[in-house]
Amino acid sequence: MSATSDILTHLIKQLSRLPGIGKKSAARIAYYLLQTDRTYTESLAEDIRNIQHRIRRCSVCGSFTEADPCDLCSDLQRDRSRICVVEQPQDVAVLEATGAFAGLYHVLGGVISPIDGVGPEDLSVAKLIDRATGIGEVIIATNPTVEGDTTALYLAKLLEERAIPVSRLALGLPVGGDLEYADRLTIERSLRGRTRLTTEL
Amino acid sequence: MSATSDILTHLIKQLSRLPGIGKKSAARIAYYLLQTDRTYTESLAEDIRNIQHRIRRCSVCGSFTEADPCDLCSDLQRDRSRICVVEQPQDVAVLEATGAFAGLYHVLGGVISPIDGVGPEDLSVAKLIDRATGIGEVIIATNPTVEGDTTALYLAKLLEERAIPVSRLALGLPVGGDLEYADRLTIERSLRGRTRLTTEL
Repeated sequence: MSATSDILTHLIKQLSRLPGIGKKSAARIAYYLLQTDRTYTESLAEDIRNIQHRIRRCSVCGSFTEADPCDLCSDLQRDRSRICVVEQPQDVAVLEATGAFAGLYHVLGGVISPIDGVGPEDLSVAKLIDRATGIGEVIIATNPTVEGDTTALYLAKLLEERAIPVSRLALGLPVGGDLEYADRLTIERSLRGRTRLTTEL
Repeated sequence: MSATSDILTHLIKQLSRLPGIGKKSAARIAYYLLQTDRTYTESLAEDIRNIQHRIRRCSVCGSFTEADPCDLCSDLQRDRSRICVVEQPQDVAVLEATGAFAGLYHVLGGVISPIDGVGPEDLSVAKLIDRATGIGEVIIATNPTVEGDTTALYLAKLLEERAIPVSRLALGLPVGGDLEYADRLTIERSLRGRTRLTTEL
């Protein structure tokens, strides 16, 4: 979709850079911004302008925060005997939203990926080892991808050498899923990782 | 997805107001904005802030423009004997992108919709009649919805009373479409609107 104004065309092009926003969605958003109330567009512009100034990385766990250390790292109510290792800061928000984990987090900042030239030295690994020493359990929550699995194995080896207990998020069928639509690898992993029903009761 | 920062939560909420952006996409965009280069976020914020200041409605056709009248209305190369009537300013861009129409446009600003309390007096109808007087053809390009069809019929009656030739965009199968997947109404309309193959050759 072409626009009849240079300014509009520029805004559409800028919006297309956002993840998940194609040219058509960008045009739709641009026309919405043109016609919505001005208070909203000004406040949105202000938020976008400020976000990088006001949010930094937590010097302890590496997630995004306004105050350093972040609210989670400073919260004395949290279980300090467990650290959950994630790839990206946004994974902390995803896990927190479940309410299923009350320990601390550690953001790696990526995964080991030789193709992309990312090695362990590019990730927050040394700091993790440092933080994890003497801790009760490290739960590795990298994504179930080749890179995520490689990174998990690499970290597990390092941590086990220091006698730190390591676990990994379970792989298996998604809740509400259907065997018929699950891929072969997921079914294999859910078979290998099968749990005794009696222990769960 | 909850975020661990108030500013981030606020940005995600603001982004969710955009059309086609749900809570998950908003979070994804917010985290992208946090991590992308600052030049881009500042330029995007600037564009969003300025868009409503720098773009207005063309006083002739009603579409969005930086200069008034707009480039299309001022372009003496265009065919001034035809006016294409659309619902929204963005429809002008959609039609222009096809390059299939070289006349002028008229933006109604909506469609007649009693449910939403929109009557002909809320649309740019009087101005259309005024502009169309003595013109060669008015092509009605409102959307093929109940409201778009109602509006098209309403306008056609007004224009025909003034002996102004009126046409409507053809309804039928989309190019590259498949009869098997077309809905009943579309097939009905494509049958009723069938064209003689010989006249097209």
